[in-house]
Amino acid sequence: MNGADRLCDTLLVNGVDVCFANPGTSEMHFVAALDRKPQMRCVLGLFEGVVTGAADGYARMADKPAATLLHCGPGMANALANMHNARRAWTPMINVVGDHATYHLVHDAPLTSDIESLAAPMSHFVRRIATPDDVGPAIGEAYAASLSLPGVTTVILPADCAWGSVEPAEVGPTPVPALKTVAAASVREAAAALRKHGARAALMMSGLSLREGPMATAARICAATGAGMFGQMSNGRIERGVGRVALPKVFYPVDMALEQLKDIDCLVLVGAQIPVGFFAYPGKPGRLVHEGCAILNLAMPGDDLPGAIAALADELGATRTAPAFVARPRDEPIVLPTGPLDADKACAIVAALLPENSIVCDESVSSGRMFYQQCHRAPPHDYLQLTGGAIGEGIPLCVGAAVACPDRKVIGMQADGSGMYTVQGLWTQARENLDIVTVIFANRTYAILHGEMRAVGVNDFGRNARLMLNLDEPALDWVMMAKGMGVEAGRATTAEEFARLFKAALGRKGPFLIEAVI
Amino acid sequence: MNGADRLCDTLLVNGVDVCFANPGTSEMHFVAALDRKPQMRCVLGLFEGVVTGAADGYARMADKPAATLLHCGPGMANALANMHNARRAWTPMINVVGDHATYHLVHDAPLTSDIESLAAPMSHFVRRIATPDDVGPAIGEAYAASLSLPGVTTVILPADCAWGSVEPAEVGPTPVPALKTVAAASVREAAAALRKHGARAALMMSGLSLREGPMATAARICAATGAGMFGQMSNGRIERGVGRVALPKVFYPVDMALEQLKDIDCLVLVGAQIPVGFFAYPGKPGRLVHEGCAILNLAMPGDDLPGAIAALADELGATRTAPAFVARPRDEPIVLPTGPLDADKACAIVAALLPENSIVCDESVSSGRMFYQQCHRAPPHDYLQLTGGAIGEGIPLCVGAAVACPDRKVIGMQADGSGMYTVQGLWTQARENLDIVTVIFANRTYAILHGEMRAVGVNDFGRNARLMLNLDEPALDWVMMAKGMGVEAGRATTAEEFARLFKAALGRKGPFLIEAVI
Repeated sequence: MNGADRLCDTLLVNGVDVCFANPGTSEMHFVAALDRKPQMRCVLGLFEGVVTGAADGYARMADKPAATLLHCGPGMANALANMHNARRAWTPMINVVGDHATYHLVHDAPLTSDIESLAAPMSHFVRRIATPDDVGPAIGEAYAASLSLPGVTTVILPADCAWGSVEPAEVGPTPVPALKTVAAASVREAAAALRKHGARAALMMSGLSLREGPMATAARICAATGAGMFGQMSNGRIERGVGRVALPKVFYPVDMALEQLKDIDCLVLVGAQIPVGFFAYPGKPGRLVHEGCAILNLAMPGDDLPGAIAALADELGATRTAPAFVARPRDEPIVLPTGPLDADKACAIVAALLPENSIVCDESVSSGRMFYQQCHRAPPHDYLQLTGGAIGEGIPLCVGAAVACPDRKVIGMQADGSGMYTVQGLWTQARENLDIVTVIFANRTYAILHGEMRAVGVNDFGRNARLMLNLDEPALDWVMMAKGMGVEAGRATTAEEFARLFKAALGRKGPFLIEAVI
Repeated sequence: MNGADRLCDTLLVNGVDVCFANPGTSEMHFVAALDRKPQMRCVLGLFEGVVTGAADGYARMADKPAATLLHCGPGMANALANMHNARRAWTPMINVVGDHATYHLVHDAPLTSDIESLAAPMSHFVRRIATPDDVGPAIGEAYAASLSLPGVTTVILPADCAWGSVEPAEVGPTPVPALKTVAAASVREAAAALRKHGARAALMMSGLSLREGPMATAARICAATGAGMFGQMSNGRIERGVGRVALPKVFYPVDMALEQLKDIDCLVLVGAQIPVGFFAYPGKPGRLVHEGCAILNLAMPGDDLPGAIAALADELGATRTAPAFVARPRDEPIVLPTGPLDADKACAIVAALLPENSIVCDESVSSGRMFYQQCHRAPPHDYLQLTGGAIGEGIPLCVGAAVACPDRKVIGMQADGSGMYTVQGLWTQARENLDIVTVIFANRTYAILHGEMRAVGVNDFGRNARLMLNLDEPALDWVMMAKGMGVEAGRATTAEEFARLFKAALGRKGPFLIEAVI
């Protein structure tokens, strides 16, 4: 057997049985090894951004990493933007980047580049394999790191380490360090702060604390102390909907966020960052809490966040308190909007018809600003966001979520501008017959940038600004593009058409795309 | 005025008047400044790989850099693969990467990343702007470096350096250092070697030495000494066709290249690299010349390559010798192939009908292996290749070449697998109404990898290998995808259909795509 076989065995023995891939010549032995392992599910992306975006969506839902197969530095370069998003979501991921044979690097062949320099900014862990015998340990380390950091790991696989012989051996599962328990002193400090500040304190939730159980526990803490509770602007995965916590998120527009947080004198971070502006604006602050706000770090991203919340509830004697903020069922029947379609109407229709146990991947950017609130009282569902601001993750994220959860409906809320970044992902949806409904918000513009231009004082756009901010002339025909990649599709220009198409898409299996012309 | 205005002024005063762009919030002041400069042509790409691929094609044809506008680390990450290709072609390019305001970086907002680490592997020059007053000098340095290295330059523009005030001032052109003259001793050494080795010597040409004039001079040298002459496997731009030098290129398959170069005892590099295998293969050498072959570096990439060749011709007394290797007109009328279409027939038809003064951008990968030879006796034309092996450059390369040369027909020879990488570039072809005929070689597979799999000893492919190497199930419908992005298109399954569509496309203006089903 060779190094590539050992690589596959090490992945499989650890339960890593999905590989999103876009191979090249230097990975042929890896492909051949995968071919000998029918228990590994190999999913082809026609561009590497699809590959890592799918791996991100997969791991957010499966709670375990997928492997990726990327081709040399340039192939990984194409994958970086969605590795960046995954890094911001602390998503476990094992990227395997094929490189030239060790002895071939000296020749500086055309595809040669400094993979470590490229990988480091978007990875929590980077490791170059040195020999065929080093393949197993390297993949084991990456697997453990992906779950214990948790985060994005990148392993560089020289071709001769893949094709070189290794002694056949039984490969055992890799031990994974437990998530770190938060110190009792931190818990006591947070409890004291919550007692002291009451309604002027808030928990800032993230990561695994956004699942139903820990959120309910946190909501008991809030009920007991009067504290508030927030999610960050963007989150990897929130379990939400009726019967769960209706978690407010920090607003994107800086002025709205400053208003939202102005009364918070004490913020308790649960694996979260201090809320800051997504961008800097002249004359506006970067931090969104006021200068006097006390910041307590209850837990860091690699810590056991659910454990920290449970310990905090214990400390506060709040384990049986009725939780605050629980979303109740809707009181009255929903009346679907009618008339010419706009973004709010499309969002309202999706929110009204959202199936129980569905997975929403939201890259609607400016079009979906109201959607999150509209879904507080929808049936229970998972909600996945663009965590790193690197647009072009929505379509692949749906791919990964659907591969992880084949029995659940995946809804992609997709802006048109960002959708074009990884439009190739539609083909993978068709190839794998994934159960995904993609809603394209076809406003034919980078709408968010129109707002940002006004924010910098430009209200009359000239030709150059229009050319750079608008996607019209020609308008993109999403129905044709989707069909060209094997995905059935329809277009809606009225709310009635949109509702009809959306209902029909929910009633069938497999990928469907709706171009919502707004 | 602000730093962004100074940036535009510095570009424009140096004749850099095309900006390929995909902006984000942190570049809004740059966009506003561009909007105040109607003399700057702003071309939107719907993905950053389109932006830098187009800038590469533009500069290869315009012999001056375009600017690009990229959004933060992730936006530049998407641009890296085609920066890599440009770096391998020594293409002048000025990438302007917007970043957060200097004081905002400390907050580690979601889009923050280490831009320098990402940029360095794919740039010859990286420079972070420190203050608004530093914008002019930084852009000037990048401009000069782009032409004198020559190569890919990346300038990081913090938002507050763009929006900060600068004193209005007249900006003058930036002095550009002349290309370095090759030392007389190197010329004498090369001349002696050519005299000594005769027919067992060869010139390895690259960069500006591949233009008509220097190639003719080199061909005089070859006629005088008996030496041979090669181009590298992949080249940024070759001026070729009837009346010009019919330059053989080093073959891609290692065994063919070894055979091709086996009698060369002395290789004179004219800004070129020693020929090496694109990849390593078990048991095969990396260097493609034999171990005893003497290597002489007549000139390095940043040197005055045409000057070096002229000096060498002088030294050898070959300035008036009739040049060797000149391609003669075809003797007999061309008979177009008929019957079911295959790659060779499609290539033969394009070669037969190639218009004079056209520009061919070749990313046909495995389908176009014969095309280069077929065009030796075509009318004079420019031939642009994928220089770095990072697939996904063909469609953008056509965009850039067409922007640079609006009066010339651009022909894209495009493999389907690599075409999908930057398929969004078709929209820019439509938006700008560029005169481009794109031929898609729709073999519905990564055909090159089938060969590579066989090279590693796998002849029977299982399910996983088929899933990762084939693009069928579903087949991509390029006609629908193109029309979805505003590009007229047709499909050919016979040679007759292909010839008819290709002639029709040549007879009209504007973008047209032909899906050649092979």
